Amino acid sequence: MLRLSLILLAIPTLALAQEPLSLQAGQKLAQASFGEYLQLLALPNDAINPPDIQKNIDFLERAFTQRGFVTKQLANKSKPMLFAEWPKKIAGAKTVLYYMHLDGQPVVDKEWSQPSPWQPVVKKRDSSNNWHIIPTEALFATPLDPDLRVFARASSDDKGPIMMLLAAFDGLKQMGVDPAFNVKVLLDSEEEQGYPSIPDVVTASKHLLHSDAIVIHDGPRHQSERPTLIFGNRGSARVTLVVHGPKQPLHSGHFGNYVPNPAVRLSRLIASMKDDQGRVTVAGYYDRITLSDAEKQILADTGDDEAAIRRSTGIKLAELVGGNLQEAIQFPSLNVRSMAAASVGEKASNIIPHQAIAEFDLRTTPEAPPNYLFGLLKAHIEQQGYRLVDGAPSDQDRAAYDKLATLTLGSAGRAVRTPLESPLGKWAYQSLQKASLSGEPVRIRMMGGSVPTDSLVEMLGAPFVIVPLVNGDNNQHTFDENLRVGHYVEGVRTIVVMLQAPPAW
Amino acid sequence: MLRLSLILLAIPTLALAQEPLSLQAGQKLAQASFGEYLQLLALPNDAINPPDIQKNIDFLERAFTQRGFVTKQLANKSKPMLFAEWPKKIAGAKTVLYYMHLDGQPVVDKEWSQPSPWQPVVKKRDSSNNWHIIPTEALFATPLDPDLRVFARASSDDKGPIMMLLAAFDGLKQMGVDPAFNVKVLLDSEEEQGYPSIPDVVTASKHLLHSDAIVIHDGPRHQSERPTLIFGNRGSARVTLVVHGPKQPLHSGHFGNYVPNPAVRLSRLIASMKDDQGRVTVAGYYDRITLSDAEKQILADTGDDEAAIRRSTGIKLAELVGGNLQEAIQFPSLNVRSMAAASVGEKASNIIPHQAIAEFDLRTTPEAPPNYLFGLLKAHIEQQGYRLVDGAPSDQDRAAYDKLATLTLGSAGRAVRTPLESPLGKWAYQSLQKASLSGEPVRIRMMGGSVPTDSLVEMLGAPFVIVPLVNGDNNQHTFDENLRVGHYVEGVRTIVVMLQAPPAW
Repeated sequence: MLRLSLILLAIPTLALAQEPLSLQAGQKLAQASFGEYLQLLALPNDAINPPDIQKNIDFLERAFTQRGFVTKQLANKSKPMLFAEWPKKIAGAKTVLYYMHLDGQPVVDKEWSQPSPWQPVVKKRDSSNNWHIIPTEALFATPLDPDLRVFARASSDDKGPIMMLLAAFDGLKQMGVDPAFNVKVLLDSEEEQGYPSIPDVVTASKHLLHSDAIVIHDGPRHQSERPTLIFGNRGSARVTLVVHGPKQPLHSGHFGNYVPNPAVRLSRLIASMKDDQGRVTVAGYYDRITLSDAEKQILADTGDDEAAIRRSTGIKLAELVGGNLQEAIQFPSLNVRSMAAASVGEKASNIIPHQAIAEFDLRTTPEAPPNYLFGLLKAHIEQQGYRLVDGAPSDQDRAAYDKLATLTLGSAGRAVRTPLESPLGKWAYQSLQKASLSGEPVRIRMMGGSVPTDSLVEMLGAPFVIVPLVNGDNNQHTFDENLRVGHYVEGVRTIVVMLQAPPAW
Repeated sequence: MLRLSLILLAIPTLALAQEPLSLQAGQKLAQASFGEYLQLLALPNDAINPPDIQKNIDFLERAFTQRGFVTKQLANKSKPMLFAEWPKKIAGAKTVLYYMHLDGQPVVDKEWSQPSPWQPVVKKRDSSNNWHIIPTEALFATPLDPDLRVFARASSDDKGPIMMLLAAFDGLKQMGVDPAFNVKVLLDSEEEQGYPSIPDVVTASKHLLHSDAIVIHDGPRHQSERPTLIFGNRGSARVTLVVHGPKQPLHSGHFGNYVPNPAVRLSRLIASMKDDQGRVTVAGYYDRITLSDAEKQILADTGDDEAAIRRSTGIKLAELVGGNLQEAIQFPSLNVRSMAAASVGEKASNIIPHQAIAEFDLRTTPEAPPNYLFGLLKAHIEQQGYRLVDGAPSDQDRAAYDKLATLTLGSAGRAVRTPLESPLGKWAYQSLQKASLSGEPVRIRMMGGSVPTDSLVEMLGAPFVIVPLVNGDNNQHTFDENLRVGHYVEGVRTIVVMLQAPPAW
């Protein structure tokens, strides 16, 4: 904390015109929006079903126009995205694009401990840490219990933040003020499907979306539950490696000790890629990554409780890629996300498999983009004596080469980072500090996961910052997703304060 | 070939009473049994499903009783085995127990290039080496095309040989003769599951099964397609290795480079077990195996066409365990029969898997039995820093040990060998020589695969010999299993001839 304060001294103080909204006022704004929030949550939003997406888009378009926004549905096959713009433009002022998404992860109904993921319920936790459904009216009581939670698909990821933004504009209206900069909003309809259409949609509406900075409200706050700013994210590249064995599976009794086993060969290849402490040994993999002492200090200041992380994940020792978790995720990773050779369990038989497969996800960094890492991996495998072929090897390949494999680069996203000390970074930090009811903001240099910043940042040529607003234990991407009501209130307050902070860059 | 002839000179000639059955007569016997054979193949026989096994047993019991055998279903939980005995006993004559199995390997339907592995089809190969389904009637045409094949699970392994034995008894009946020795038959119902019940069943019926020698019709003939005699087999021990990762699958973006990946750890373990030439590097694994110059000579005399084997299996170089294939399989093996971590393909997601599994089959030799090899493997894994636990590790285990794994020894069979120059060995050689239409018989000291000779030989105190009858390229244990019709005909003939050869010991 001391160190963080010292850094803060170096940041010039911005003159914020107004005192932040009171907590009580934030609660009232939140409560006034809860009815609309519950209606929105009752709309299924798995992007696999375009008519559902259309209903969400129409609902949200009404919500934005009712508040005075000018809107446009951006054509995207049968799953349009929603664009909204605050009409009172300030000449010469910066423009901030808010990016959020209205689609949600798929659901498996029976996993949920409520009648339906699409029927939001309010729950309260008892002294034994069990959740109980209580009447929805509790959301509208005074005083509001901040520990209540709303359970539904997308309650946190990412409909909650969309409603917080809408409630924040209700707040500005009550206060009789306008945002301190020009505001645009883009709501993605396919974020959970890997945002396949962002490049096309952004290209088609480049002029409309033009902006000076991008603010993303998505994902959970830091584990400490302090206000959180994220300045970058790793990209994700999918790579498939198939090691070819005999033409077809062979009886392991008749050929064991004679015909090479592709599962053993794949194992030897993977073993050659990492050392016993989890460090990638593919030549050059980490070469481009350097962390200055100042950067290491910022990473350490995040204050992760690593003992708790190791306990909750069930490991004794972490890998030694970085000195701590935050350092580790500044480096590209080489993760085996799955592996298969023949069938295990009841379907297993005594064979030499004809092939063995490993699927990797490479987390990339701005310095080490997908093609660069893929090239290193390819060279490494060839150095182990492999001939890389496209698809199944021919008889000629088999006669000519002892070791045969196929390596394929699948979908690949690039990593992006905005400098912490950039004008956008400073503005975001200070306005978040001003709004905070939960201590000094945490600044995360680059998070481990991936969001579609690469397409947005590249196509729009604007820097970005992620301001997550929801609780860390929200179960996003799985069953019993929820949003803590206190986080909702703080989120509304945060957005109100940030909207009033004139960009200093 | 010269060397083989010299060996033959040392074997005393037996007086065989009758000329062998003509090829034409063999074809007629085969064709008369094809209808029954196809019906038998239409009965699913994965021993995981006891009611299916019962249907096979009932079908075969009828087939044996119709030919005059006395039968008995030997109780074995819900998967009885079938015992059959030829009722006309010859006082003072030797008794031979024929051992075969009616169960088959598991199937993965979609892998097969026919509607179902349980709907046998007849196929013919075109000039481009592609197989085409043709009407089943072709099996009953005159002349019979020996290159036709019947495709179905268990067509070769091991229902084909069972039907050949039945057809051979039809032949004896037509010829008006009886076997030259007393005949008993035991049909196993769980051979492909590692024959877990043979010891119990044999113990319970020891008197019934008592015999002077065991003849096993299972497995393929030698690659040269000459008549084949096998005097020993490796055992098979199943071992499962589970490397434990985090408590549950984790987001690979947030934890990649921090939480150790169990698929990588499993790969490193497997890599530590074998060198780049396929030699097992687990300490002591090969220590007990020595081959004398004389033994090496017998192994070389097998005359394998290794260039052809490499070509047909699609490999450029063989592993360097032995100087040739026959030498290689005199050593124990350590085969990875399957491997899995999370899901590959469409169900894959960007996670660190919570565990990685490898299933091994260890082929054992008389000198290196299952428990000995398992002990070496266990010690090896512990030497790599692993704490071995039973099942899922506890939180205490996770806090105390960095590397956690579970190693389990499943079903395990021992290897057995009968001396080539024993009286049984000589009798089998000469009668097979007499039946041969395909050159001098090949003698194999110890084959790579496993049959339950250990329990049978040990419990009954009788020597054994394996007389494989089916084609080498029958795809047993995998999809598109098949039996070449010409082999079926030769198999029937061979059994007829052997049944007429009085044991000389």
